Amino acid sequence: MDAALTLAGLGEDALVERLVGLLPVSGAAVVAGPGDDCAIVEGASSDCWSLLKADAVVEGVHFAPGEKMARVGWKALCRAISDVAAIGGVSLHALVSVTAAPATPWVVLRDLYRGLAKAARAYDVSVVGGETTHSNGPLVCSVFLTGSVEPARCVRRSGGRPGDVLLVTGRLGGSLESGHHLDFKPRLAEARWLSAHGRPNAMMDLSDGLAKDGPRLARASGCGLELDMESVPRRRGCSVESACADGEDFELLLAVCPDRVEALLTEWKSAFPRLPLTRIGRLLDAGEGLRPRAIFNLRGYDHFQ
Amino acid sequence: MDAALTLAGLGEDALVERLVGLLPVSGAAVVAGPGDDCAIVEGASSDCWSLLKADAVVEGVHFAPGEKMARVGWKALCRAISDVAAIGGVSLHALVSVTAAPATPWVVLRDLYRGLAKAARAYDVSVVGGETTHSNGPLVCSVFLTGSVEPARCVRRSGGRPGDVLLVTGRLGGSLESGHHLDFKPRLAEARWLSAHGRPNAMMDLSDGLAKDGPRLARASGCGLELDMESVPRRRGCSVESACADGEDFELLLAVCPDRVEALLTEWKSAFPRLPLTRIGRLLDAGEGLRPRAIFNLRGYDHFQ
Repeated sequence: MDAALTLAGLGEDALVERLVGLLPVSGAAVVAGPGDDCAIVEGASSDCWSLLKADAVVEGVHFAPGEKMARVGWKALCRAISDVAAIGGVSLHALVSVTAAPATPWVVLRDLYRGLAKAARAYDVSVVGGETTHSNGPLVCSVFLTGSVEPARCVRRSGGRPGDVLLVTGRLGGSLESGHHLDFKPRLAEARWLSAHGRPNAMMDLSDGLAKDGPRLARASGCGLELDMESVPRRRGCSVESACADGEDFELLLAVCPDRVEALLTEWKSAFPRLPLTRIGRLLDAGEGLRPRAIFNLRGYDHFQ
Repeated sequence: MDAALTLAGLGEDALVERLVGLLPVSGAAVVAGPGDDCAIVEGASSDCWSLLKADAVVEGVHFAPGEKMARVGWKALCRAISDVAAIGGVSLHALVSVTAAPATPWVVLRDLYRGLAKAARAYDVSVVGGETTHSNGPLVCSVFLTGSVEPARCVRRSGGRPGDVLLVTGRLGGSLESGHHLDFKPRLAEARWLSAHGRPNAMMDLSDGLAKDGPRLARASGCGLELDMESVPRRRGCSVESACADGEDFELLLAVCPDRVEALLTEWKSAFPRLPLTRIGRLLDAGEGLRPRAIFNLRGYDHFQ
């Protein structure tokens, strides 16, 4: 019966869980394997861990055919930077792997790489290699990014505790319509500041929508979840539904010890006066309210459904 | 006029050269950017460099639709391991990024990951993450592999000198017909041995065929090239043309100081009695014989032509 099951039938999270179960992730040097924003491995020095991230953009999925390719290149690299940021780390080196049809005009790849280069300069990434291969399918641009983080500043999805307050940066929703998904700025400086000052117990970046990613953080932390939907900060003109389910926000979701929240919000305001940091809910004991009532029918983005 | 130029019109090497020119590869920590088998970057410790490699297999290009997916998974990881080997290093961690259609049967990805896992266990690689995305094009499996190498054992393409003898491991040609491209064993132990004992001046793995990769090594070393076509070791039933142009051999091509060759060949025979190591030519002064007469019309594999 398994033979008839498709990726769409299985869904993204179940698929990933099954695939991960097939892989050897052993080795003392592995701090975090699949399931966090990045993989975390020990490096040659004990005061620094290495971060590894793979992320692809696909024509017709992550960008429309005919889209300005410099914006696509920006997005391709910034998605991966956003994941490194969510751990509390800094980005270092990137490889870019592009699959394109032989009939593709050269200027399409030229503009893609200009966008990649712009993002690399903006966030101090060296693009040290990659490859090009042909296919007759859609253009695929895979980015591999390395980073580093001091163990004391490493913030994982799994560190949340019952009672932690959930906060989100920026405003959510309408990423596709507004073009935000092509020109967002990964929250690298903000996350780096948080990893030193706010010391969140858990953090992740929102790529598939709060309705999907919120429960992921709660599950990874072994907690339940309560969201106050009305307090979710929304992009102008967006409904609550849109703010929770559109995805591609690339904002930070963090869980903070309740007795540190007030001080953090005050310090944040002077560090980042133009970027809101908003309380949107809290973590509960495991089994409590994992499926928030108000987002019962919202699912966020699933790659195969 | 540039606007009308396609990737096919430009060809792979010229495309890569143009794209690389657009990217920031700066940073004191970058030992080798694009152009070698792997990128080489300094790590946290000075007695060890990090190796970074991205490599993708595409359905219809690197494997036929309907191929046994466990073999495809083996190939996908082993291609990248072969590149880490060619630097003289060891492989460490991998990320796997797969793009597949939602209607793909789950067992296709299951078997792909079984093959990846088998290769990971065989060569001591931890698969620490990756991602799955959908597309309606062919299945694409991108592998990102890290490795490490001691600076004293790092062998690059660019270290060859005029007069160096060119050697090749194994036998070339007929990789597609024989199925070698799906079940080859990356020359990790052999290259590691060479980086300690043979100390080649230059080394690379043969993926696009000797006719293409030989001149690449010579060019990277600023040398000319002379190949003795009749001495190229061939897989059973293969012509000289096939041995030089088929590609996907994943054997090692190395350039060794002439006064070390005899001793190396003797030691090799006792270390690897079942794998031939064969003299096939030499490096010349720059400008001499870069286009070997006998392979004048052979081009090796180009991804866009």
